[in-house]
Amino acid sequence: MPTTAAALDALTDLLGDRLNRSQSDRDLHGRSESHFKQMPPDAVAYPESTAEVAEIVKICHGAGLPIIGWGAGTSLEGHALAPRGGVTVDFSRMAKVLDIVPEDMVVSVQPGVTREALNTELRATGLFFPIDPGANASIGGMASTRASGTTAVRYGTMRSNVLGLEVVLADGRVIRTGTRAPKSSTGYDLTALFVGAEGTLGLITEITLKLHGQPEASRSAVCAFDTMAGAVDAVIATIQSGIPMARIEFVDTAAAAAFNKGAGTDWPDAPHLMVEFHGSEAGVIEQTERFAEIAGDFGAQGFRWAAKPEERTALWAMRHNAYRTTLQAYPGCTAITTDICVPISRLAEAVEETAAEIAASGLPGPIVGHVGDGNFHALLLPKTGDAAEWETAMKLSANMAERALRLGGTVSGEHGIGLGKTKYMRAEHGDAWDVMGAIKAALDPEGVMNPGKLLPGN
Amino acid sequence: MPTTAAALDALTDLLGDRLNRSQSDRDLHGRSESHFKQMPPDAVAYPESTAEVAEIVKICHGAGLPIIGWGAGTSLEGHALAPRGGVTVDFSRMAKVLDIVPEDMVVSVQPGVTREALNTELRATGLFFPIDPGANASIGGMASTRASGTTAVRYGTMRSNVLGLEVVLADGRVIRTGTRAPKSSTGYDLTALFVGAEGTLGLITEITLKLHGQPEASRSAVCAFDTMAGAVDAVIATIQSGIPMARIEFVDTAAAAAFNKGAGTDWPDAPHLMVEFHGSEAGVIEQTERFAEIAGDFGAQGFRWAAKPEERTALWAMRHNAYRTTLQAYPGCTAITTDICVPISRLAEAVEETAAEIAASGLPGPIVGHVGDGNFHALLLPKTGDAAEWETAMKLSANMAERALRLGGTVSGEHGIGLGKTKYMRAEHGDAWDVMGAIKAALDPEGVMNPGKLLPGN
Repeated sequence: MPTTAAALDALTDLLGDRLNRSQSDRDLHGRSESHFKQMPPDAVAYPESTAEVAEIVKICHGAGLPIIGWGAGTSLEGHALAPRGGVTVDFSRMAKVLDIVPEDMVVSVQPGVTREALNTELRATGLFFPIDPGANASIGGMASTRASGTTAVRYGTMRSNVLGLEVVLADGRVIRTGTRAPKSSTGYDLTALFVGAEGTLGLITEITLKLHGQPEASRSAVCAFDTMAGAVDAVIATIQSGIPMARIEFVDTAAAAAFNKGAGTDWPDAPHLMVEFHGSEAGVIEQTERFAEIAGDFGAQGFRWAAKPEERTALWAMRHNAYRTTLQAYPGCTAITTDICVPISRLAEAVEETAAEIAASGLPGPIVGHVGDGNFHALLLPKTGDAAEWETAMKLSANMAERALRLGGTVSGEHGIGLGKTKYMRAEHGDAWDVMGAIKAALDPEGVMNPGKLLPGN
Repeated sequence: MPTTAAALDALTDLLGDRLNRSQSDRDLHGRSESHFKQMPPDAVAYPESTAEVAEIVKICHGAGLPIIGWGAGTSLEGHALAPRGGVTVDFSRMAKVLDIVPEDMVVSVQPGVTREALNTELRATGLFFPIDPGANASIGGMASTRASGTTAVRYGTMRSNVLGLEVVLADGRVIRTGTRAPKSSTGYDLTALFVGAEGTLGLITEITLKLHGQPEASRSAVCAFDTMAGAVDAVIATIQSGIPMARIEFVDTAAAAAFNKGAGTDWPDAPHLMVEFHGSEAGVIEQTERFAEIAGDFGAQGFRWAAKPEERTALWAMRHNAYRTTLQAYPGCTAITTDICVPISRLAEAVEETAAEIAASGLPGPIVGHVGDGNFHALLLPKTGDAAEWETAMKLSANMAERALRLGGTVSGEHGIGLGKTKYMRAEHGDAWDVMGAIKAALDPEGVMNPGKLLPGN
């Protein structure tokens, strides 16, 4: 087997200065947006084509060198870190929108394109790609983590919006999954297998996505509630009523206070819901009225409506910046994100137990969530370097995971497993985790694809 | 390794007279609704619990005996035949609706429950399970073939409506996939892997399904077109307009004639569309008007509306019986079903080329289809025992598969692969078919789960 040094030399022969071995670039690709420590790769490769990706993979595979995909670096569970070194494949030079087919409402893209760049290119077509995890993530990363976000309640997650993929396997073979037809029953659903596989089975080099029509009309609003229970129960009643919410987001009192501090708003000290409606002009008015009535029954007040595009953009930018805004509101703290998701009927229990336990712990832990899906996040904020507070935060996080499973839910609604959540996989999946391990062993027997993440014994 | 006889004796010890080795029961489970010849198993097992299924699988696995799942026997590609003998596991005694959770809009069922029985149990809840392949299939079979049907254009296929599974693996281990939460990002999407795996990776013993609200209002209609092109172009324009069609089905002139003969209708000799709208009272009226306008632009005439439930039921019963009605209209013929699916923008080409080639062949070949998904079926009807006509039909079928792939589609929209379509798998999937084979080898190294179906070298 060639040495690491020989493999890196071979990669330099292939890529020239598009193989970067500088400390600064390695460090840049060895850090994440969350609390994980620095784990740099041995080098960063910047391929420009699928053929180059396949060559990179073959060289690394031959030398037993880990291969880690990198999109926009916005993942929250350390998916793109290099705990065992190796080569990070940065897709920033494979960021083209390849083919927009408006009449089929599909688009094919390279993995490095970001969701915002894609929507900019789509603007004139009357179509858009709705999945919105907040961060301006890359489509390849979003596919690999099965991302979702604020609009999943209406438009689904990456699971339902990826029609097909091109994937470079661990041995360098290139396969295609799916077609542009709306459905298929021809064998194992490999598209679904690679979506959410976090780069552990192969590198995604092309994605075919479903698009949606830009809504004729949109309207957003924020309203406050007297109690957290009122806000959450309003969500449950709204979802059960069948109103096709485009967004319905919970913001607790602490998160609202952080927004006020970080974004200069003047929301009352209270739990809030942020909502959006998409449809025809008449449909949006009807939905709005029905929602206002339900929310009113649960004590909503102080509705602030945003109908103009710039007002809506400002509102959702604030939601998207919640993570950074909240961090800024608690200087000297480290953020530990959580991401549980429960059946909608158990949402009130899940949120209230979590909030009560956080309050009792004394740690700051604002809660926001895509509650229309039963998914919410507490941002736990121990003081940096305070071992006792860190331990408290870890215990709160573990209790949230246990709570999600007890209530019939899942330890990650959208962030994925990466390095951070493998410890909960056995509890959630039992022997099914070993089935994942068997698939991994079958498709990547050398274990070169993103090692250390997601799988058992890894 | 125990002999087949010893394994069957062990199964009798386990199941008593719920292991049936009679010729008549073996023959009953050795035939399908389509053109495949009789392929009976060595015995038929009737388990009553997951634990029994696991024991059956362990015994068969230990003796290298094939294990074939059987739901309602309505599959069209020979999925449940026993080309290598073995034990057919008939789920008719595992047909309970286990748990309806209206507030989460989910239900858990055993695999043997049929879609009609499920909807009967759901009636009082205000919810329904919309996936409707026509036949009164079992939910386990529908999951295993990734079925869809007339309503997929609105409600999706089994891919998007199965939330979780319990599966008995080839070695008898029992796993659970998915949760009741609306979404999850915790590892490989095993639910999606087993949905559509046609029983080649394990036996599904429980299914958790998404439910949908019964529409407040429904309306159906049939209309005739001067030309096939007019009807198909009307579908394309309707889908592209974003009208949320609940159903939009194409019926060509020959199929309409077969309906008239078999169901006593008096439709004109012309291509037709059958449509259905679901929504609020106002929404249905709005959708209806928009559709009528678009269809009118493409020459639709003679609209017949069905608003009463019994009229709608009669209309869709006729569509569901199309296969049998058509067979009856062509006595002495054998039916060869086809099932291609293309991007909606290529639908007109696909249907017109197919119809022209069938017309030129001289064989009867009525066309019906779930055209809102780009999916259609020609029912090719060679005279039974006429080798030349059989060969013509097989050639037409192969040309349809080639056409689907050329136009960016798939060789099966909803029927699956089974025994009948493995010959097209390499052309559709290339090396990705080998990836399916590697997964199969990893999860069923002895090859006991439904051998001879779907996979390469099988």
